[in-house]
Amino acid sequence: MYSIIVCAHGDLAESFKRSAEMIFGKTDKFYPVRFVPGENLEDIKKKISAVISQNNLTDVLILADLFCGSPYNAAAAIAFDRQSVEVVSGVNLSIILEAVSGQNTSTLAEIVAHIKKIAPDTVKSFRDVLAAQESEESL
Amino acid sequence: MYSIIVCAHGDLAESFKRSAEMIFGKTDKFYPVRFVPGENLEDIKKKISAVISQNNLTDVLILADLFCGSPYNAAAAIAFDRQSVEVVSGVNLSIILEAVSGQNTSTLAEIVAHIKKIAPDTVKSFRDVLAAQESEESL
Repeated sequence: MYSIIVCAHGDLAESFKRSAEMIFGKTDKFYPVRFVPGENLEDIKKKISAVISQNNLTDVLILADLFCGSPYNAAAAIAFDRQSVEVVSGVNLSIILEAVSGQNTSTLAEIVAHIKKIAPDTVKSFRDVLAAQESEESL
Repeated sequence: MYSIIVCAHGDLAESFKRSAEMIFGKTDKFYPVRFVPGENLEDIKKKISAVISQNNLTDVLILADLFCGSPYNAAAAIAFDRQSVEVVSGVNLSIILEAVSGQNTSTLAEIVAHIKKIAPDTVKSFRDVLAAQESEESL
């Protein structure tokens, strides 16, 4: 069972956890990490590393808020040295729910592949959805 | 200038606003709306409508957390009746920053098109980025 670390600016990671728990109930092996004003890349890297070592995490999926933001860059630096750590940027609530859903059934490699596959389809415009429905109905 | 409403489970919308402000400084015409336990679709629809009417918003981009979640469905119901309201699901911090960046330069239609275009590329796996870099370096 892989663990999930969400690492994000401000308190976004904790909010993702609370929102996921509002939908799914209590999460397991799910660790939010804050990147707060005044911290630098080294600080956030230390915080992520501390979560990994203090909880004896092995397979870890780190979901970061922003490609090339400090949370992502810190996570990438850790993953560079550890093959059992994967990092994906651009986390949204759909990705969080997929990651939590897969914890008991997917390997770390499988969940990364799955997230990459489903991610583009999580962003949908209502007008496109409506147009597609109307087009189907007219068939 | 379009307004931005972020509508999400729990306090995720407020966290997105705080994280965006941590990066960009104060936002303008940016309204977070909570969907909390015990509320139903009608409640969240009323809350979004109240934000629109109380602030006299005209062009509105509603960013919802989850396709077909209650915040999305409520926003979609409002957009169905109002052409000047657009809804996009799957909000992440990159999309928030793009939406805020475009407020002074893009129309509502332009920002929706832009978000649809950039969204798939906001979700990146570190190992893919690394492999692409190594492949470039070996050329």
